[in-house]
Amino acid sequence: MKTLKLLNYERDRWIAGDGAVEIPSAIDGAPVAITGSGGLDFGGMLRHARDVGGQALRKLTFHERARMIKALGLAIMARKEELYELNYLTGATRKDGWIDIEGGAGTLFSFSSKGRRELPDAHVLLDGQLEGLSKNGTFVGQHIYTSLQGAAVHINAFNFPVWGMLEKLAPTLLAGVPAIVKPASATAYLAEAAFKIMIEANILPPGAIQLIVGGVGDLFDHLTGQDVVSFTGSAHTALKLRTHPIVMRESVKFVAEQDSLNASLLGPDAVPGTPEFDLFIKEVATEMTVKAGQKCTAIRRAMAPAQCLDAVERALGERLAKTKVGDPRAEDTRMGALVSLSQRDDVRQKIAELEAAGARIVAGDPTADPPIPGGAFLPPVLLRTDDPWGTDAVHDCEPFGPVSTIMPYRDIADAIALANRGKGSLALSLFTHSSEAAREFVQGAAAYHGRMLVIDRTNAAESTGHGSPLPVLVHGGPGRAGGSEEMGGVRGVKHYMQRTAIQSSPTMIAAITEQYIPGGPKHVIKGHPFRRKMSELAIGDTLRTGSRTVTLEDIEHFAEFTGDKFYAHMDEEAAKASPIFEGRVAHGYLILSFAAGLFVDPDPGPVLANNGLENLRFLTPLYPGDSMRVELTVRSKSLKSEDTGVVRWAVEIFNQHDELVATYDLLTENTP
Amino acid sequence: MKTLKLLNYERDRWIAGDGAVEIPSAIDGAPVAITGSGGLDFGGMLRHARDVGGQALRKLTFHERARMIKALGLAIMARKEELYELNYLTGATRKDGWIDIEGGAGTLFSFSSKGRRELPDAHVLLDGQLEGLSKNGTFVGQHIYTSLQGAAVHINAFNFPVWGMLEKLAPTLLAGVPAIVKPASATAYLAEAAFKIMIEANILPPGAIQLIVGGVGDLFDHLTGQDVVSFTGSAHTALKLRTHPIVMRESVKFVAEQDSLNASLLGPDAVPGTPEFDLFIKEVATEMTVKAGQKCTAIRRAMAPAQCLDAVERALGERLAKTKVGDPRAEDTRMGALVSLSQRDDVRQKIAELEAAGARIVAGDPTADPPIPGGAFLPPVLLRTDDPWGTDAVHDCEPFGPVSTIMPYRDIADAIALANRGKGSLALSLFTHSSEAAREFVQGAAAYHGRMLVIDRTNAAESTGHGSPLPVLVHGGPGRAGGSEEMGGVRGVKHYMQRTAIQSSPTMIAAITEQYIPGGPKHVIKGHPFRRKMSELAIGDTLRTGSRTVTLEDIEHFAEFTGDKFYAHMDEEAAKASPIFEGRVAHGYLILSFAAGLFVDPDPGPVLANNGLENLRFLTPLYPGDSMRVELTVRSKSLKSEDTGVVRWAVEIFNQHDELVATYDLLTENTP
Repeated sequence: MKTLKLLNYERDRWIAGDGAVEIPSAIDGAPVAITGSGGLDFGGMLRHARDVGGQALRKLTFHERARMIKALGLAIMARKEELYELNYLTGATRKDGWIDIEGGAGTLFSFSSKGRRELPDAHVLLDGQLEGLSKNGTFVGQHIYTSLQGAAVHINAFNFPVWGMLEKLAPTLLAGVPAIVKPASATAYLAEAAFKIMIEANILPPGAIQLIVGGVGDLFDHLTGQDVVSFTGSAHTALKLRTHPIVMRESVKFVAEQDSLNASLLGPDAVPGTPEFDLFIKEVATEMTVKAGQKCTAIRRAMAPAQCLDAVERALGERLAKTKVGDPRAEDTRMGALVSLSQRDDVRQKIAELEAAGARIVAGDPTADPPIPGGAFLPPVLLRTDDPWGTDAVHDCEPFGPVSTIMPYRDIADAIALANRGKGSLALSLFTHSSEAAREFVQGAAAYHGRMLVIDRTNAAESTGHGSPLPVLVHGGPGRAGGSEEMGGVRGVKHYMQRTAIQSSPTMIAAITEQYIPGGPKHVIKGHPFRRKMSELAIGDTLRTGSRTVTLEDIEHFAEFTGDKFYAHMDEEAAKASPIFEGRVAHGYLILSFAAGLFVDPDPGPVLANNGLENLRFLTPLYPGDSMRVELTVRSKSLKSEDTGVVRWAVEIFNQHDELVATYDLLTENTP
Repeated sequence: MKTLKLLNYERDRWIAGDGAVEIPSAIDGAPVAITGSGGLDFGGMLRHARDVGGQALRKLTFHERARMIKALGLAIMARKEELYELNYLTGATRKDGWIDIEGGAGTLFSFSSKGRRELPDAHVLLDGQLEGLSKNGTFVGQHIYTSLQGAAVHINAFNFPVWGMLEKLAPTLLAGVPAIVKPASATAYLAEAAFKIMIEANILPPGAIQLIVGGVGDLFDHLTGQDVVSFTGSAHTALKLRTHPIVMRESVKFVAEQDSLNASLLGPDAVPGTPEFDLFIKEVATEMTVKAGQKCTAIRRAMAPAQCLDAVERALGERLAKTKVGDPRAEDTRMGALVSLSQRDDVRQKIAELEAAGARIVAGDPTADPPIPGGAFLPPVLLRTDDPWGTDAVHDCEPFGPVSTIMPYRDIADAIALANRGKGSLALSLFTHSSEAAREFVQGAAAYHGRMLVIDRTNAAESTGHGSPLPVLVHGGPGRAGGSEEMGGVRGVKHYMQRTAIQSSPTMIAAITEQYIPGGPKHVIKGHPFRRKMSELAIGDTLRTGSRTVTLEDIEHFAEFTGDKFYAHMDEEAAKASPIFEGRVAHGYLILSFAAGLFVDPDPGPVLANNGLENLRFLTPLYPGDSMRVELTVRSKSLKSEDTGVVRWAVEIFNQHDELVATYDLLTENTP
């Protein structure tokens, strides 16, 4: 294969950088690519991102951005085989590559879907409910999120060059923020190839994404409080970056996702012979060998009740002995190579440190000859300590490869303390069929771990596994793991936005948020809103219905018909005696039903169904003889799928004194 | 007055510290107190907080903690006059003191109320909905918050010694986290007095709060990733603390709320003669003089359309000239003293820097003689620059006293750029009656500001003002303002908790969260749950109703009765033609109404009313001839007031094939 010449993507141009560095293949050490970023105008890249990319992205709505993100995923999928070819050179098997490449595209799809379902087709995201700040309601509070006006700088790890890039890009772009991507050198050729696919698909506006295939030069000197640095990698490098004087002085947002000493625990009940014991052995072995153990979530510490530790050692040793290590292209290979010889040497060094601290190797030979000369191969290595409280290194020193240490615990309290001794992790798994043990353990340890799995015989078949961050769940952890979060659906988007508390009148807040706010302006339309497609409905469009009197006969009839004969509806004396009512009142569901009778337009049209309702509150009782009328206002619009819209209507039911009887959000399924 | 000897509260003991420092009165320089913290065991305080205070607080539920917080507020209010006496010595008027003392107690009450209304009576807080992660639903995801297991270290500012302490303590204690409070020296005597009131009220468990009335010694060397430092004060000190090597290395959570160059803008429409012009003048003058301008939210930059700037200068100058500066105890005093002579000297120095940069004084004489000899008095000083883009200092240099600079802007884009030139602020206000201007300005500037007010003639009377952080709204801002948040109701509580993604079966997640989770275990009780008080209902208690068949007659009758004749219910052909239904279906509201008929227990009892419902989703259509039954399960419990409970019921409606027809949360008002 010809040596690739990697290019930077600086201010919408592909340019080669100075100071070229050679990247060798993980399999045989042959040169794969030459890379470098010397001579780039890093400050200019940041300005270009902010002034060109950010401006363009902020003009789009969340839904428009979500559609672009889906298109990026489709572009990756259409050319995935090009990426699989490069993936092998990183030492990864096709299965490993699937996590990286298709898992990366899947993350784009997940964010695109969440963006269209859970975010409005607007520029501003509301956070929480309107807060009443005054007696008459002229002054209220509403939290909003708006896009940061800086750039995101993504510093990625070598192990998942595609997924690692896309899981950061998805929430960033969805937030309306441009990104500058800096992949790790060892696998930069794969990241560059995936980046190029996205550029060639011509989906994003100019300035939305840029690429640095070498060092970041003086980029950090140009950061501001509107920029975000999102880092994945070692604790050591994270510390260097987060203490940069500009990051500190300007309060630059810094998201760090650091390798941590993740633990897996065999529950006290999960003795040999139980399904949970077998599941534990399988999971630990899998986590050690997938991606040759080069995963920030991999299990480094496997803990078991002291009396089970020998059985664990035996079972794991047997399983690991069967792991075929070799050319990642070969069908029968279960584990490929580490990313580079220097990475392999680092892992060997860390194993030696663990041994020096008192742990001993019980399976695997770190000095074994590589199956391919010049390749960065290392068989899975299992260590054991019987004195986990006397062997600090097993909790602090991380060999970033196919290496784990097994250790005993005495009881749940000891297991919690040992798990937390890692000082913060990304992921922890517990194998138990006891919900009591699960409760005690998770409540005692959750504050130290970003993600926790409890696996047993009932859910193992459907489990996504210890090591897999999911786009809908947060990925990150406290302390040693970096003290940050990524992904987690819309949670991850908010890292690239600023929350602001707005205080004003409902009218002003409606104008600012471009959304209907209770008490804000309404636009009473001609004709019935159910006759309009979603695209023909504007925020604030309102239907005002006629009114209907609710009689005692209605209440009695409804009670008879439905069977709901609650005393407050049926018994004048008992209702009066309650602390809430002055006499018999209409059923809440009667009010809802009559409201629908007032606002529903019967004929087939763009409104397909009532999907549900939210935040219903009954505010003023409706007594026999009172009348009711409805105002139905378009609050927001979103999509359920490509061809199904969801309109959220603010429903306000008033009595004859214009007092609010009930309010709720009605969700209808609409033709977009 | 005798000189006070301030004491530290270390590990539940009052002890004097070494290295005593004298604190002078702001009014006349006479000694008020001696303080010092030398010799304290700072590492021991942290361990005591974690091991004793944290353990005890975490055993309590959110509601139990919320009740303690209310009791603390009542204790402060009962002895507030003692605090007002000390307040005068800080240079503050009674009105200034009201913000500090009663505003502080009010913040406790607000958090107590939010805690009981919005948090469960449990130890674990759920975040967001259950995430389906598998086809058969055996493996699901749920985000939870649990209490951090470290301690909170609160480093407070001198300006609001009581409020500043309480606004941090309320969310911390509600989260179940112990705190070590370090007030600023200049007003430590007032903080110590308020702290002592809380200790003497004997409300909190041992170790829950500790006090350091001098320097923090080597405290920071003992921090871990489970601790939180929450700092209020200058950007300079924040930088020093946040770059502490342990804070960096251990990813210690660091919340910084820094003084910022807050702006207030006169809208382009708000020319002299409009109500908004007058409101702007009044607000700027108020913000300059309340607490002698020593507020982190005070207006430092007042911006107006260029053609209005002379009018602004005149009107502000006239208003400020009427401000009576003097003894804060005197009834006719509008503004008291700065906190100390050194603070006054610092403000004079900053004014000189602004003058050197090109701004000029247009009202007030910084060298004026003090009304009381030895007192730290300074009249309000207004500066002006006509070249805000050529005078960097007006955006960067903050005189922390009764000082503002007026400056012109050209148009809204220029106003946005100038507002954002402050590089991040805590609070910004805009005076305009144009919702178009408000929209454009806020959308363009929100990313730089933590809180924004838009004031006009309709809401000014009820406005809480530019400078007032409110407990239900976030307080903090990006960049220069520190890049953090405090308060904001439950948002602020989460800063002291860890979010963890839990992946497991619904049964396990229910056990872990001690809350009912759809798909998790239910306990079908004997008798009807409506006959039980809230305290007699356990999470997971379930009523299974009998079933009822829904006939075509029911549907037609309901349509006739309510008026809801939507075609999907009435027209077999049209319903079939829709993309959703196979024929005529029952109304959603009919299903809800029949469900109530099935589960309601009619007689008077502990259930007082149906308060509303949430998250209703219709999942499977119900066709004529189908039958329905209901399972009603206690999901969680909270309080609406002291003597009114709210039970949240998970309602699941099934058809005859046990398919889910609809799910929702029902809220009932109950006797606790």
